[in-house]
Amino acid sequence: MPATINHLPDPKLDLVLERVVEVPPPLVWAAWTRPEYIKRWFTPAPWQTVDCEIDLRPGGIFRTVMRSPEGKEFANTGCWLEIIENRKLAWTGALLPGYRPQNASVPFLMTVVILMEPNGVGTKYTAIAIHGDEEAAKKHAAIGFHDGWGKALDQLVGLAKTI
Amino acid sequence: MPATINHLPDPKLDLVLERVVEVPPPLVWAAWTRPEYIKRWFTPAPWQTVDCEIDLRPGGIFRTVMRSPEGKEFANTGCWLEIIENRKLAWTGALLPGYRPQNASVPFLMTVVILMEPNGVGTKYTAIAIHGDEEAAKKHAAIGFHDGWGKALDQLVGLAKTI
Repeated sequence: MPATINHLPDPKLDLVLERVVEVPPPLVWAAWTRPEYIKRWFTPAPWQTVDCEIDLRPGGIFRTVMRSPEGKEFANTGCWLEIIENRKLAWTGALLPGYRPQNASVPFLMTVVILMEPNGVGTKYTAIAIHGDEEAAKKHAAIGFHDGWGKALDQLVGLAKTI
Repeated sequence: MPATINHLPDPKLDLVLERVVEVPPPLVWAAWTRPEYIKRWFTPAPWQTVDCEIDLRPGGIFRTVMRSPEGKEFANTGCWLEIIENRKLAWTGALLPGYRPQNASVPFLMTVVILMEPNGVGTKYTAIAIHGDEEAAKKHAAIGFHDGWGKALDQLVGLAKTI
Protein backbone atom coordinates (compact mmCIF):
# COMPACT_ATOMS: atom_id res chain seq x y z
CA MET A 1 0.00 0.00 0.00
CA PRO A 2 1.29 3.48 -0.77
CA ALA A 3 2.54 5.65 2.09
CA THR A 4 -0.01 7.68 3.99
CA ILE A 5 -0.13 11.46 3.59
CA ASN A 6 0.61 13.93 6.37
CA HIS A 7 -2.33 15.87 7.70
CA LEU A 8 -1.50 19.48 8.47
CA PRO A 9 -4.61 20.97 10.05
CA ASP A 10 -5.74 24.34 8.71
CA PRO A 11 -6.60 26.46 11.78
CA LYS A 12 -9.46 28.15 9.91
CA LEU A 13 -11.05 24.99 8.58
CA ASP A 14 -10.15 22.17 10.94
CA LEU A 15 -10.79 21.30 14.57
CA VAL A 16 -8.24 19.23 16.44
CA LEU A 17 -8.30 17.25 19.65
CA GLU A 18 -4.89 15.98 20.73
CA ARG A 19 -4.29 14.17 23.98
CA VAL A 20 -2.15 11.43 25.48
CA VAL A 21 -4.39 8.72 26.90
CA GLU A 22 -3.37 5.86 29.19
CA VAL A 23 -4.58 2.99 26.99
CA PRO A 24 -2.44 1.52 24.19
CA PRO A 25 -3.22 1.92 20.45
CA PRO A 26 -4.76 -1.57 19.99
CA LEU A 27 -7.46 -0.75 22.55
CA VAL A 28 -8.16 2.66 21.00
CA TRP A 29 -8.34 0.87 17.67
CA ALA A 30 -10.80 -1.71 19.01
CA ALA A 31 -13.02 1.00 20.50
CA TRP A 32 -13.14 2.77 17.13
CA THR A 33 -13.72 -0.22 14.88
CA ARG A 34 -16.37 -2.41 16.55
CA PRO A 35 -20.01 -1.33 16.55
CA GLU A 36 -20.65 -2.78 20.02
CA TYR A 37 -17.90 -0.54 21.42
CA ILE A 38 -18.83 2.55 19.38
CA LYS A 39 -22.28 2.40 20.94
CA ARG A 40 -20.69 2.64 24.37
CA TRP A 41 -18.48 5.73 23.93
CA PHE A 42 -19.07 7.62 20.66
CA THR A 43 -21.59 10.19 21.90
CA PRO A 44 -21.10 12.21 25.09
CA ALA A 45 -23.74 11.31 27.69
CA PRO A 46 -26.62 11.96 28.09
CA TRP A 47 -26.69 11.55 24.31
CA GLN A 48 -26.47 7.95 23.15
CA THR A 49 -25.34 6.08 20.06
CA VAL A 50 -28.15 3.60 19.61
CA ASP A 51 -27.06 1.96 16.38
CA CYS A 52 -23.82 1.53 14.46
CA GLU A 53 -22.77 -0.26 11.31
CA ILE A 54 -19.16 -0.70 10.26
CA ASP A 55 -17.71 -2.33 7.15
CA LEU A 56 -14.05 -1.67 7.83
CA ARG A 57 -12.78 -1.44 4.27
CA PRO A 58 -12.02 1.60 2.12
CA GLY A 59 -15.42 2.66 0.78
CA GLY A 60 -17.24 0.52 3.38
CA ILE A 61 -20.11 1.92 5.40
CA PHE A 62 -19.75 3.80 8.68
CA ARG A 63 -23.23 4.55 9.98
CA THR A 64 -24.22 5.76 13.42
CA VAL A 65 -27.54 6.75 14.93
CA MET A 66 -27.38 9.20 17.81
CA ARG A 67 -30.26 9.80 20.19
CA SER A 68 -30.75 13.06 22.06
CA PRO A 69 -31.80 13.10 25.72
CA GLU A 70 -35.27 14.00 24.42
CA GLY A 71 -35.35 10.87 22.28
CA LYS A 72 -34.81 12.44 18.88
CA GLU A 73 -32.64 10.34 16.57
CA PHE A 74 -30.02 11.53 14.10
CA ALA A 75 -28.57 9.09 11.56
CA ASN A 76 -25.22 9.73 9.92
CA THR A 77 -23.93 7.65 7.04
CA GLY A 78 -20.48 7.92 5.54
CA CYS A 79 -17.65 5.66 4.50
CA TRP A 80 -14.18 4.70 5.56
CA LEU A 81 -11.26 6.10 3.61
CA GLU A 82 -8.09 4.83 5.25
CA ILE A 83 -7.53 1.94 7.61
CA ILE A 84 -4.03 1.38 8.99
CA GLU A 85 -4.34 -0.94 11.97
CA ASN A 86 -3.52 0.60 15.34
CA ARG A 87 -2.23 3.74 13.66
CA LYS A 88 -4.69 5.64 11.46
CA LEU A 89 -8.37 5.76 10.61
CA ALA A 90 -10.08 8.15 8.24
CA TRP A 91 -13.76 8.38 7.34
CA THR A 92 -15.93 10.98 5.70
CA GLY A 93 -19.52 12.10 5.60
CA ALA A 94 -18.94 13.62 2.16
CA LEU A 95 -19.10 10.18 0.53
CA LEU A 96 -21.67 7.46 1.05
CA PRO A 97 -20.67 3.79 0.99
CA GLY A 98 -19.03 2.86 -2.31
CA TYR A 99 -17.62 6.43 -2.47
CA ARG A 100 -20.88 7.90 -3.76
CA PRO A 101 -20.91 11.72 -3.34
CA GLN A 102 -23.25 12.70 -0.51
CA ASN A 103 -26.34 14.40 -1.76
CA ALA A 104 -28.51 14.67 1.34
CA SER A 105 -28.89 17.95 3.14
CA VAL A 106 -26.73 17.72 6.25
CA PRO A 107 -25.77 20.52 8.65
CA PHE A 108 -22.17 20.31 7.44
CA LEU A 109 -19.84 17.83 5.78
CA MET A 110 -16.68 16.64 7.44
CA THR A 111 -13.91 14.12 7.20
CA VAL A 112 -12.40 12.74 10.40
CA VAL A 113 -8.81 11.53 10.69
CA ILE A 114 -7.78 9.65 13.85
CA LEU A 115 -4.07 9.18 14.46
CA MET A 116 -2.74 6.83 17.13
CA GLU A 117 0.92 6.75 18.17
CA PRO A 118 2.34 4.61 20.96
CA ASN A 119 3.31 6.84 23.90
CA GLY A 120 4.81 4.96 26.84
CA VAL A 121 2.12 2.48 27.83
CA GLY A 122 -0.53 4.71 26.33
CA THR A 123 -1.38 6.47 23.08
CA LYS A 124 -0.88 9.91 21.64
CA TYR A 125 -4.37 10.37 20.21
CA THR A 126 -5.07 13.00 17.55
CA ALA A 127 -8.53 13.57 16.10
CA ILE A 128 -8.83 16.03 13.22
CA ALA A 129 -12.24 17.17 11.97
CA ILE A 130 -11.72 18.48 8.43
CA HIS A 131 -14.30 20.84 6.94
CA GLY A 132 -14.86 22.31 3.50
CA ASP A 133 -15.29 25.92 4.62
CA GLU A 134 -15.01 28.20 7.65
CA GLU A 135 -18.76 28.22 8.16
CA ALA A 136 -18.81 24.45 8.69
CA ALA A 137 -15.85 24.62 11.08
CA LYS A 138 -17.54 27.40 13.06
CA LYS A 139 -20.83 25.53 13.20
CA HIS A 140 -19.04 22.43 14.47
CA ALA A 141 -17.11 24.43 17.07
CA ALA A 142 -20.33 26.14 18.18
CA ILE A 143 -22.19 22.87 18.79
CA GLY A 144 -19.36 21.90 21.10
CA PHE A 145 -16.62 20.03 19.26
CA HIS A 146 -13.97 20.46 21.94
CA ASP A 147 -16.11 19.65 24.93
CA GLY A 148 -18.03 16.90 23.16
CA TRP A 149 -15.10 15.10 21.60
CA GLY A 150 -13.15 15.42 24.86
CA LYS A 151 -15.97 13.81 26.84
CA ALA A 152 -16.39 11.08 24.24
CA LEU A 153 -12.65 10.35 24.47
CA ASP A 154 -12.97 10.05 28.26
CA GLN A 155 -15.73 7.51 27.61
CA LEU A 156 -13.53 5.68 25.09
CA VAL A 157 -10.70 5.44 27.62
CA GLY A 158 -13.09 4.26 30.35
CA LEU A 159 -14.42 1.57 28.02
CA ALA A 160 -10.96 0.56 26.75
CA LYS A 161 -9.83 -0.16 30.32
CA THR A 162 -12.56 -2.81 30.55
CA ILE A 163 -11.81 -4.55 27.23
CA MET B 1 -4.71 -3.68 3.80
CA PRO B 2 -8.37 -4.64 4.14
CA ALA B 3 -10.11 -6.24 1.18
CA THR B 4 -11.57 -3.93 -1.43
CA ILE B 5 -15.32 -3.54 -1.74
CA ASN B 6 -17.36 -4.61 -4.75
CA HIS B 7 -18.81 -1.84 -6.85
CA LEU B 8 -22.28 -2.58 -8.12
CA PRO B 9 -23.24 0.28 -10.40
CA ASP B 10 -26.67 1.82 -9.87
CA PRO B 11 -28.19 2.25 -13.36
CA LYS B 12 -29.90 5.48 -12.30
CA LEU B 13 -26.87 7.10 -10.71
CA ASP B 14 -23.81 5.64 -12.36
CA LEU B 15 -22.30 5.60 -15.84
CA VAL B 16 -20.19 2.64 -16.88
CA LEU B 17 -17.70 2.04 -19.66
CA GLU B 18 -16.57 -1.58 -19.94
CA ARG B 19 -14.32 -2.84 -22.68
CA VAL B 20 -11.57 -5.37 -23.32
CA VAL B 21 -8.48 -3.57 -24.57
CA GLU B 22 -5.39 -5.12 -26.13
CA VAL B 23 -2.81 -3.73 -23.69
CA PRO B 24 -2.02 -5.43 -20.36
CA PRO B 25 -2.96 -3.98 -16.94
CA PRO B 26 0.53 -2.60 -16.13
CA LEU B 27 0.38 -0.34 -19.19
CA VAL B 28 -3.17 0.81 -18.40
CA TRP B 29 -1.93 1.47 -14.88
CA ALA B 30 1.04 3.50 -16.13
CA ALA B 31 -1.20 5.59 -18.41
CA TRP B 32 -3.48 6.39 -15.46
CA THR B 33 -0.84 7.19 -12.85
CA ARG B 34 1.80 9.36 -14.53
CA PRO B 35 1.05 13.00 -15.31
CA GLU B 36 3.09 12.94 -18.52
CA TYR B 37 0.88 10.13 -19.82
CA ILE B 38 -2.41 11.57 -18.52
CA LYS B 39 -1.70 14.69 -20.59
CA ARG B 40 -1.54 12.53 -23.71
CA TRP B 41 -4.81 10.61 -23.45
CA PHE B 42 -7.16 11.87 -20.70
CA THR B 43 -9.27 14.28 -22.76
CA PRO B 44 -10.77 13.37 -26.13
CA ALA B 45 -9.24 15.46 -28.94
CA PRO B 46 -9.59 18.27 -29.91
CA TRP B 47 -9.78 18.97 -26.16
CA GLN B 48 -6.44 18.74 -24.38
CA THR B 49 -5.21 18.06 -20.87
CA VAL B 50 -2.60 20.76 -20.47
CA ASP B 51 -1.60 20.16 -16.87
CA CYS B 52 -1.77 17.28 -14.38
CA GLU B 53 -0.60 16.70 -10.84
CA ILE B 54 -0.65 13.30 -9.16
CA ASP B 55 0.33 12.33 -5.62
CA LEU B 56 -0.52 8.65 -5.81
CA ARG B 57 -1.44 8.03 -2.18
CA PRO B 58 -4.85 7.84 -0.51
CA GLY B 59 -5.81 11.48 0.06
CA GLY B 60 -3.14 12.69 -2.37
CA ILE B 61 -3.93 15.24 -5.06
CA PHE B 62 -5.28 14.43 -8.51
CA ARG B 63 -5.52 17.65 -10.48
CA THR B 64 -6.06 18.10 -14.18
CA VAL B 65 -6.50 21.15 -16.36
CA MET B 66 -8.46 20.63 -19.56
CA ARG B 67 -8.43 23.08 -22.46
CA SER B 68 -11.27 23.43 -24.90
CA PRO B 69 -10.65 23.82 -28.65
CA GLU B 70 -11.45 27.52 -28.10
CA GLY B 71 -8.69 27.79 -25.49
CA LYS B 72 -10.85 27.93 -22.36
CA GLU B 73 -9.34 26.09 -19.40
CA PHE B 74 -11.13 24.01 -16.80
CA ALA B 75 -9.27 22.89 -13.67
CA ASN B 76 -10.44 19.92 -11.64
CA THR B 77 -8.98 19.03 -8.27
CA GLY B 78 -9.79 15.93 -6.29
CA CYS B 79 -7.96 13.20 -4.43
CA TRP B 80 -7.14 9.54 -4.74
CA LEU B 81 -9.09 7.09 -2.62
CA GLU B 82 -7.85 3.62 -3.47
CA ILE B 83 -4.69 2.49 -5.18
CA ILE B 84 -4.21 -1.23 -5.85
CA GLU B 85 -1.43 -1.58 -8.37
CA ASN B 86 -2.45 -2.87 -11.80
CA ARG B 87 -5.93 -3.67 -10.50
CA LYS B 88 -7.95 -0.76 -9.11
CA LEU B 89 -7.87 3.01 -8.89
CA ALA B 90 -10.46 5.24 -7.28
CA TRP B 91 -10.51 9.02 -7.04
CA THR B 92 -13.15 11.59 -6.27
CA GLY B 93 -13.96 15.21 -6.93
CA ALA B 94 -16.05 15.33 -3.75
CA LEU B 95 -12.92 15.56 -1.61
CA LEU B 96 -9.95 17.85 -2.06
CA PRO B 97 -6.42 16.66 -1.19
CA GLY B 98 -6.20 15.58 2.45
CA TYR B 99 -9.85 14.42 2.19
CA ARG B 100 -11.23 17.94 2.66
CA PRO B 101 -14.90 18.10 1.59
CA GLN B 102 -15.22 19.96 -1.72
CA ASN B 103 -16.83 23.32 -1.30
CA ALA B 104 -16.41 24.92 -4.71
CA SER B 105 -19.31 25.20 -7.09
CA VAL B 106 -18.78 22.51 -9.72
CA PRO B 107 -21.22 21.30 -12.39
CA PHE B 108 -21.51 17.95 -10.58
CA LEU B 109 -19.53 15.82 -8.16
CA MET B 110 -18.37 12.37 -9.06
CA THR B 111 -16.16 9.54 -7.93
CA VAL B 112 -14.41 7.41 -10.54
CA VAL B 113 -13.49 3.76 -10.04
CA ILE B 114 -11.22 2.11 -12.61
CA LEU B 115 -10.99 -1.69 -12.54
CA MET B 116 -8.36 -3.60 -14.49
CA GLU B 117 -8.42 -7.37 -14.91
CA PRO B 118 -6.00 -9.40 -17.01
CA ASN B 119 -7.79 -10.71 -20.10
CA GLY B 120 -5.61 -12.82 -22.38
CA VAL B 121 -2.77 -10.51 -23.35
CA GLY B 122 -4.99 -7.49 -22.68
CA THR B 123 -7.16 -5.99 -19.99
CA LYS B 124 -10.81 -6.03 -19.12
CA TYR B 125 -11.20 -2.33 -18.35
CA THR B 126 -14.15 -1.03 -16.36
CA ALA B 127 -14.64 2.66 -15.61
CA ILE B 128 -17.50 3.61 -13.29
CA ALA B 129 -18.52 7.25 -12.82
CA ILE B 130 -20.43 7.42 -9.54
CA HIS B 131 -22.78 10.35 -8.92
CA GLY B 132 -24.75 11.58 -5.94
CA ASP B 133 -28.07 12.00 -7.72
CA GLU B 134 -29.85 11.33 -11.01
CA GLU B 135 -29.46 14.93 -12.13
CA ALA B 136 -25.66 14.67 -11.97
CA ALA B 137 -25.70 11.37 -13.85
CA LYS B 138 -27.97 12.82 -16.55
CA LYS B 139 -25.82 15.93 -16.88
CA HIS B 140 -22.74 13.78 -17.28
CA ALA B 141 -24.44 11.54 -19.84
CA ALA B 142 -25.66 14.61 -21.74
CA ILE B 143 -22.19 16.15 -22.06
CA GLY B 144 -21.10 12.91 -23.68
CA PHE B 145 -19.80 10.43 -21.11
CA HIS B 146 -20.00 7.39 -23.36
CA ASP B 147 -18.54 8.93 -26.47
CA GLY B 148 -15.97 10.97 -24.56
CA TRP B 149 -14.69 8.25 -22.26
CA GLY B 150 -14.65 5.79 -25.17
CA LYS B 151 -12.50 8.12 -27.27
CA ALA B 152 -10.22 8.82 -24.33
CA LEU B 153 -9.79 5.07 -23.83
CA ASP B 154 -8.85 4.71 -27.50
CA GLN B 155 -6.21 7.39 -26.90
CA LEU B 156 -5.01 5.55 -23.76
CA VAL B 157 -4.59 2.33 -25.74
CA GLY B 158 -2.81 4.15 -28.54
CA LEU B 159 -0.42 5.68 -26.03
CA ALA B 160 0.07 2.44 -24.07
CA LYS B 161 1.26 0.68 -27.22
CA THR B 162 4.13 3.17 -27.43
CA ILE B 163 5.25 2.90 -23.78
